Amino acid sequence: MKLSVTITLKKDVLDPQGKAVQNTLQGMGIDNLKSLRQGKYFEIELNESNESAAKKKVDDMCKMLLANLIIENYKIDIVK
Amino acid sequence: MKLSVTITLKKDVLDPQGKAVQNTLQGMGIDNLKSLRQGKYFEIELNESNESAAKKKVDDMCKMLLANLIIENYKIDIVK
Repeated sequence: MKLSVTITLKKDVLDPQGKAVQNTLQGMGIDNLKSLRQGKYFEIELNESNESAAKKKVDDMCKMLLANLIIENYKIDIVK
Repeated sequence: MKLSVTITLKKDVLDPQGKAVQNTLQGMGIDNLKSLRQGKYFEIELNESNESAAKKKVDDMCKMLLANLIIENYKIDIVK
């Protein structure tokens, strides 16, 4: 089973990396750009056919290593 | 309008960073882990209410700066 994890910074956390990308795009002539925030993305394949067991396992991985729960949110999806 | 961009490495491109995360998780006792690949994620807000115009604009950003088309694929979604 294949799952994806999307990790984003919480709303009130500054994102200097995203800001730098945003400024670069604006400097390249992109207008109408209101905000850009950068996150992380993982695609995880598990030897596990039960959907909720797989989600639980990936949730554990997020808590243990992938996400910093103090400043980040994460979202787990099944990849079809 | 808010859009998301998910950038992943193409299938045959090595992902040493993902591999390092995978090894770390396995060392922490996660079994059943078949593969883990890391990607990038952007959340972009545009002052643009037309869906296809917004997608076109984000597509331009991907081609100009966000994605390396030689080794990466990208996917654009509307964030509700």
